[in-house]
Amino acid sequence: MGGVCWTMRALFSGLSLMTTRRELANCIRALSMDAVQHANSGHPGMPMGMADIAQVLWGDFLKHNPGNPQWLDRDRFLLSNGHGSMLLYSLLHLTGYPLSLEEIRNFRKFGSHTAGHPEHEPALGIETTTGPLGQGLANAVGMALAERMLATQFNRPGLAIVDHHTYVFCGDGCLMEGISHEACSLAGTLGLGKLIAFYDDNGISIDGKVEGWFTDDTPKRFEAYGWHVVRVDGHDAQAVAAAIRAARAETTRPSMICCRTIIGWGAPHKQGTQETHGEALGAEEVAATRQAIGWPYEPFVIPAELRALWDQRSRGGGAEAAWRELLVRYRSEYPQLARELERRMRGELPANWPATVSQALAAGLAQKAPQATRQSSQATLNVIAPRIPEIFGGSADLTGSNNTKFKAARELNPQDASGDYMHYGVREFGMTAVMNGIALHGGILPYGGTFLVFSDYARNAVRLAALMNTHVVLVYTHDSIGLGEDGPTHQPIEHLTSLRAMPNLCLWRPCDAFETAVAWTAAVERPGPTALVLTRQALPQQARTKTQQDNVYRGGYVLVDCQGTPECLVLATGSEVAIAAEAVTALNTGGRRVRLVSMPSTEVFDAQDEAYRESVLPNAVRCRLAVEAGATLSWWRYVGIEGRVIGIDRFGASGKGAEVLAHFGFTAEHVGREAGELLKSAG
Amino acid sequence: MGGVCWTMRALFSGLSLMTTRRELANCIRALSMDAVQHANSGHPGMPMGMADIAQVLWGDFLKHNPGNPQWLDRDRFLLSNGHGSMLLYSLLHLTGYPLSLEEIRNFRKFGSHTAGHPEHEPALGIETTTGPLGQGLANAVGMALAERMLATQFNRPGLAIVDHHTYVFCGDGCLMEGISHEACSLAGTLGLGKLIAFYDDNGISIDGKVEGWFTDDTPKRFEAYGWHVVRVDGHDAQAVAAAIRAARAETTRPSMICCRTIIGWGAPHKQGTQETHGEALGAEEVAATRQAIGWPYEPFVIPAELRALWDQRSRGGGAEAAWRELLVRYRSEYPQLARELERRMRGELPANWPATVSQALAAGLAQKAPQATRQSSQATLNVIAPRIPEIFGGSADLTGSNNTKFKAARELNPQDASGDYMHYGVREFGMTAVMNGIALHGGILPYGGTFLVFSDYARNAVRLAALMNTHVVLVYTHDSIGLGEDGPTHQPIEHLTSLRAMPNLCLWRPCDAFETAVAWTAAVERPGPTALVLTRQALPQQARTKTQQDNVYRGGYVLVDCQGTPECLVLATGSEVAIAAEAVTALNTGGRRVRLVSMPSTEVFDAQDEAYRESVLPNAVRCRLAVEAGATLSWWRYVGIEGRVIGIDRFGASGKGAEVLAHFGFTAEHVGREAGELLKSAG
Repeated sequence: MGGVCWTMRALFSGLSLMTTRRELANCIRALSMDAVQHANSGHPGMPMGMADIAQVLWGDFLKHNPGNPQWLDRDRFLLSNGHGSMLLYSLLHLTGYPLSLEEIRNFRKFGSHTAGHPEHEPALGIETTTGPLGQGLANAVGMALAERMLATQFNRPGLAIVDHHTYVFCGDGCLMEGISHEACSLAGTLGLGKLIAFYDDNGISIDGKVEGWFTDDTPKRFEAYGWHVVRVDGHDAQAVAAAIRAARAETTRPSMICCRTIIGWGAPHKQGTQETHGEALGAEEVAATRQAIGWPYEPFVIPAELRALWDQRSRGGGAEAAWRELLVRYRSEYPQLARELERRMRGELPANWPATVSQALAAGLAQKAPQATRQSSQATLNVIAPRIPEIFGGSADLTGSNNTKFKAARELNPQDASGDYMHYGVREFGMTAVMNGIALHGGILPYGGTFLVFSDYARNAVRLAALMNTHVVLVYTHDSIGLGEDGPTHQPIEHLTSLRAMPNLCLWRPCDAFETAVAWTAAVERPGPTALVLTRQALPQQARTKTQQDNVYRGGYVLVDCQGTPECLVLATGSEVAIAAEAVTALNTGGRRVRLVSMPSTEVFDAQDEAYRESVLPNAVRCRLAVEAGATLSWWRYVGIEGRVIGIDRFGASGKGAEVLAHFGFTAEHVGREAGELLKSAG
Repeated sequence: MGGVCWTMRALFSGLSLMTTRRELANCIRALSMDAVQHANSGHPGMPMGMADIAQVLWGDFLKHNPGNPQWLDRDRFLLSNGHGSMLLYSLLHLTGYPLSLEEIRNFRKFGSHTAGHPEHEPALGIETTTGPLGQGLANAVGMALAERMLATQFNRPGLAIVDHHTYVFCGDGCLMEGISHEACSLAGTLGLGKLIAFYDDNGISIDGKVEGWFTDDTPKRFEAYGWHVVRVDGHDAQAVAAAIRAARAETTRPSMICCRTIIGWGAPHKQGTQETHGEALGAEEVAATRQAIGWPYEPFVIPAELRALWDQRSRGGGAEAAWRELLVRYRSEYPQLARELERRMRGELPANWPATVSQALAAGLAQKAPQATRQSSQATLNVIAPRIPEIFGGSADLTGSNNTKFKAARELNPQDASGDYMHYGVREFGMTAVMNGIALHGGILPYGGTFLVFSDYARNAVRLAALMNTHVVLVYTHDSIGLGEDGPTHQPIEHLTSLRAMPNLCLWRPCDAFETAVAWTAAVERPGPTALVLTRQALPQQARTKTQQDNVYRGGYVLVDCQGTPECLVLATGSEVAIAAEAVTALNTGGRRVRLVSMPSTEVFDAQDEAYRESVLPNAVRCRLAVEAGATLSWWRYVGIEGRVIGIDRFGASGKGAEVLAHFGFTAEHVGREAGELLKSAG
């Protein structure tokens, strides 16, 4: 379809098809080299090398509407090799997205929409934030999976309301990164037939020719993953078009189109070298490139004829209009499904959400026996997940340990995408980046589990979740040395601090079933990433008044109070709340005035108004003790220079959980002793 | 040689070879299932599944001496699938390492040497800490590379003083993890012919049969990496032996022996299922297994005849003795080389080290013009590296940006391992774990560079460096929003806090050329991991008295002082020291009494005696301000509840570095204003 359209337009314009294609590609080259030169910063080599491929894909195949970048059924396009951001900005500008020439001129300038690396901005057609290599590829796997799940859930015979492709560009760097293995191996197993990747095989990375450090037979590697692999000359538009047609025809396997390209194509003295990768070509080489590619126009000037050929607003509007006709029929035949799809794509929770929250909290309250919070989490999921159809669970091969599989969960498998639970395999980084892709696609709310210590493996995907504000829930169990025998490799120490230090990530470390239920409902409501940090070992249930129950939502609250103004404040989270409560109660019984603050989420507490914070932690009370089985670093903020922290600033040990906890001082006795000493020294 | 030895001993013992092999393997199975049962915690499935392979490798091939676990030229054996720790403990115990039966009985008990996952303990033959999957495999790549480099540097015709293999076991989990891709792709490019890996292809991971989430054609994948691949039945000892012989015969490519195995082999009702993976078999199944494999002995009893066959102390002593004869010849022919090899394997710095330090510091002092600390780092390396032959540099494809390549560096390449610099490719995690392996091997001191933000990708390998205390230097450049145009994906925020929270990692963030020189020399001297955090942008040089110069080594010191007792303390690191100095000087000129403390390493400062710390940060002075272009979280410890921190607790922005820094308040004016306000409110 697209191909025919192109041929006709090109003939109509009086130019030969091949000449036009190259000239169109040169629009990208010129904008990219000029913008980088103007900014004196950036990466011209990749856009110049992939311009021919991009022209074919965006000109002939991509289903999108620049007039409505957020059209639900658009194809998704991701630039995993995000340093080549000028390629994307050029494409968006040329095809008619609301990205002006002024923005292109302001490439890499403070406050512009054309940042050094693409930053997720769906209103402009930027589907994801890339730059950290390999992750765009994993996001694409998530998007293709989301498409497949939604298609399975919502399409009806003759009414394929969700039916689009996911295209992703990637480079040598992406394919050297381990995450490319995790994500692409998974995509192969899942048989994501509508995922089409383009490998910019230019043989160059920052340090030079990759042959000294990267000699994979990449096509063979992807065949080993079960992908459909095509090899083409990335500067031969006909070959690229044929490869895309072949990839689209292959519906049961993802496709990798390996494109041999020349980095910086067109720059006569620098093409094919790392000099074109990450810096401006220089005025002289820019001029020489103009000469070499026959581009007589001034910087940032695109001739009207070429501009008209690039413009896809009309074609895109037509494509969306056709889909909207389908939607009208779909709405009429399946009104409830249509409403549900649209609700989910808007990211709104269903009408039953408040009732679901009540049920989840009631279930938490009803739990009387001691319970590990990972089990409390599962119990909450048992209430929530069946009522919120967009919830999609999984684990990086720790399903039974993370307690991530709710009772009614149905497993997704390569043959059937109707399930709501997935085994991601031992792929923490891949899982998290795939979850980001699912969330970015929209319509699905993913959560995924691993051990807290292995959040390390996924850390930069967690960071991108925070940076993009994707709505994902990270279920991190086995949250301290209390996990016991698995020993120090599995015992988190610094992880609570390091996750709290990450902007825009909300962390909850609940102390019992009720706090866990609150944390889960907060995570579902928050339109951004939340980490739920849960124990392996059983914890007792705490008693709370109705006010205390309500205050859990404020991240920190008074759990055990004394008569009158407290002399001392004890702060604790998670598994340490129970021992702290025991210690505080004993001190108060002994005539002291000590208050226990349970602080399941420091981020949420910090966001409360000052009056509330003062009511919980009166500024005047400076005798303060924090207790948490993790690094002490994040607690000095609350206890001050005079305060103390019972934490652990060394690695743990293998042994029974209770024994290890006791060894490192996490007992009611030790908490009581430390508080007592503090009280004494405070006079 | 080994094979013949075995055959003869088996014949001598009157048992058929095959029967004996199976019985010997059953020693591992019995010890493993009994120890796990006794601890009621652990992973019996893998040891029972890989026992036959382990028996062949350790019985027939492994060159080692249980009587001297640290023999320089021993083969290295790594258990990347570290949850199967009882396999390793069984092997060490049975072959005669100083790991008693009592320790086996105390498996997973607090204080034992038989932790849940193997913990690096070279005196016992535990070569590396494993458990976090995939990293043992990467460590093995590092060890094989270290062997090759040392062999190249030290062997002489007829005197192959360094000549050993690296063997590594790995499982499905290791091979799903992305790091397996990074490390094995690199090993293929390097052609590490003496690296031999065994893949425990049992088709099971924690969540069940891997076919639902892991369908790679793994042999094909490794062929794509350029490995030599052999497929065998892992329970057929002859086939395994033949595969090992083939692998040893292949000297130009690493070998992957893909072993089809049955997890929990021998457990009649549970073998081949995930039930054997991570928990005790249960008394009933243990009894049934005894029956099934014909093992009539009580728990922890190994018949003397089998014990004698396992014992390798005599054979190992003989092997080492033969090598020592070689060493005597080597010492006599190449006395200087021999001393050098032994010095390096002991991890001692050369005699010229103090002089080298003086030169490095002098070079730092001599720098007058502003300079980025990444360049100061390179300048220091230019002094140090040529004088310390064990130093081995590299970068994860950011050589020019990390400034990691010193002037005299020679590149290592697949054909020639004599170089002292390597291009790791875009593989941060792989690089760091390979560096751990190099350091664990001994004889080489690796450093490697990437951007600070991408320490995220490598984070769990950094953690294992800290846990094992490997001597590696992590060069992290582009350390703040000051890097500018690359934008928030590349701008670290939380990284300083999260690295400081990690036990046993020492972090330096120097403010100029001299502090950088100190940091580097401290990193070379510290027998553990150090992170050097360096700027992209130029920083001015600070003036220092001799005492101040000496005090840089204390991690924090008074850089700008006032007359008399200070009213206010300002703390800063790295790029913020200069702006803080400007602000403090202005305040002091204006009649205030403000002190500036430069704090390049909080860990080192915290380790100083109390008197020194008090002399720098007098407890009585509570008007305190910290300035650092990163998350504020790690500074409250020093400034207290009344203090302030000028930091950044949100993500950055793309734009010119100076503009971005100014936007977020990192200017002398803003520091002066904040300090002024603090002074006012302090009265």
